[in-house]
Amino acid sequence: MRFGHGAPGEQGIAFTTEILVRFCDLDPAGIAYYPNLVNFLHVAFEDFFAGHVGRPYPDVFREGLGFPTVKVEMEYLTPVHYGDRVAVRVSVEKVGRSSVRFRYEGSVLGKPVFRARNTAVVVDMKTFKPITVPDDLRSKFLEAADCAPD
Amino acid sequence: MRFGHGAPGEQGIAFTTEILVRFCDLDPAGIAYYPNLVNFLHVAFEDFFAGHVGRPYPDVFREGLGFPTVKVEMEYLTPVHYGDRVAVRVSVEKVGRSSVRFRYEGSVLGKPVFRARNTAVVVDMKTFKPITVPDDLRSKFLEAADCAPD
Amino acid sequence: MRFGHGAPGEQGIAFTTEILVRFCDLDPAGIAYYPNLVNFLHVAFEDFFAGHVGRPYPDVFREGLGFPTVKVEMEYLTPVHYGDRVAVRVSVEKVGRSSVRFRYEGSVLGKPVFRARNTAVVVDMKTFKPITVPDDLRSKFLEAADCAPD
Amino acid sequence: MRFGHGAPGEQGIAFTTEILVRFCDLDPAGIAYYPNLVNFLHVAFEDFFAGHVGRPYPDVFREGLGFPTVKVEMEYLTPVHYGDRVAVRVSVEKVGRSSVRFRYEGSVLGKPVFRARNTAVVVDMKTFKPITVPDDLRSKFLEAADCAPD
Repeated sequence: MRFGHGAPGEQGIAFTTEILVRFCDLDPAGIAYYPNLVNFLHVAFEDFFAGHVGRPYPDVFREGLGFPTVKVEMEYLTPVHYGDRVAVRVSVEKVGRSSVRFRYEGSVLGKPVFRARNTAVVVDMKTFKPITVPDDLRSKFLEAADCAPD
Repeated sequence: MRFGHGAPGEQGIAFTTEILVRFCDLDPAGIAYYPNLVNFLHVAFEDFFAGHVGRPYPDVFREGLGFPTVKVEMEYLTPVHYGDRVAVRVSVEKVGRSSVRFRYEGSVLGKPVFRARNTAVVVDMKTFKPITVPDDLRSKFLEAADCAPD
Repeated sequence: MRFGHGAPGEQGIAFTTEILVRFCDLDPAGIAYYPNLVNFLHVAFEDFFAGHVGRPYPDVFREGLGFPTVKVEMEYLTPVHYGDRVAVRVSVEKVGRSSVRFRYEGSVLGKPVFRARNTAVVVDMKTFKPITVPDDLRSKFLEAADCAPD
Repeated sequence: MRFGHGAPGEQGIAFTTEILVRFCDLDPAGIAYYPNLVNFLHVAFEDFFAGHVGRPYPDVFREGLGFPTVKVEMEYLTPVHYGDRVAVRVSVEKVGRSSVRFRYEGSVLGKPVFRARNTAVVVDMKTFKPITVPDDLRSKFLEAADCAPD
């Protein structure tokens, strides 16, 4: 798993959201439990829809579009603690015919805490079959594109 | 992310546990929510300690050893449904000085549903600093080794 | 909230299941987080269907019956720890026309750790409207009745 | 379980926070899963500390004070859906020597969706023994008191 690191050639509109680490996110070591940080990716994905795409994901979902994850890769760079405000930067690495690969970079007070990639397939929720990424979503995804190496 | 697929040269003792998909694991599409399947990896890790290592992980943890995840990669091959019994095969891909890379392969009725890799660092829970993998654990991990390419 | 305590006049078939406390259930104090113990009630409810009613709840649910909770009361008597095996006794306090009130008593090594009541309404999942408790379920629920005071 | 309903004689400072219903909160019926709504109580409790008490709960917790729940009662009045913004009003029903009973009322667009009570004991996290509610917290709790009947 290679990740660019805010490299020069970067382009696109960076979308960033902030997620507060809650009691329920913690493990007995007092740090965020790693599957709960995977859930942070979905929270950021939801905020990306509301804040960047301009259509709240609950609406998109209710209209019958789903984005099941087919692959996730995540690196945990430093522990995340209770009360931390994690800034999650969301960008798009690749838009395929019926899939999209997101990139997430989490930081606390400017210090990177995790980075991740998530590939989701766009499906019709009635059939659970992949469909072509709708044009309006595709253009919004491309607006958030990073020119990261494939 | 390359994964071997139960290839010939495989060796080591395969440990497999079964995890029942519960209501709490599901998303509104009626399938297991992907961060909850990441939690399945930890459940399987716990069962691996009880069933293969021979020391329940709660005991190991209480004695002051932790295994924070530094990296996870997971592929979701087909949706997992309510009531499915997921057989999770746990093996060890690599044991470093103070880290161990686990491999998890989930299947339902013989059909693969996910595969994953998790790299954890062994830490002293008092200091949260990496320590050398204790010898007894190392030998048990190596017993579960797959000869997967690095 | 009054609870009987395994009082004399008790009747009905006691159903008990065992739930292992997992890492994901814990809070940073190292004990089970109380909403996660509420989830234990649902896990026990699922096991009650499989083990007592004789119809796995996933099947019941897929056939279009739901049991949304309208009220829960739970007392936490003593902390539950990592690795504890919680024996959860499930019984039925009351079966109404379209509702059922369950009672749950959790113990670890014979020591009570929680007790709870949950009132669920039986609904048609297509309409989400209450329906009369089906006869086969009603009779199974009544078999598990405790003669607790209403 | 009796609850006042925003009755006349109410006094104290009402604290209200808003919680967005996330994908991870949902069950396969597409509504918030009831143990996840119990977690909403803790989220509101955390926001109450930050917004009303004036000391973020993560700080209080790190300083060695815990509030384990000994009893929760919750009524679910109407289903909560994906994307709903639940306004949760937090008030204090009773402050004992070493315990406090909170009351939570959730509503969506002005419509009540749940109400709950939670009794927590204040403990020293080092010993997990109850301690007297510290004076500064007690006075803040009393400021948020509802004159609900005991």
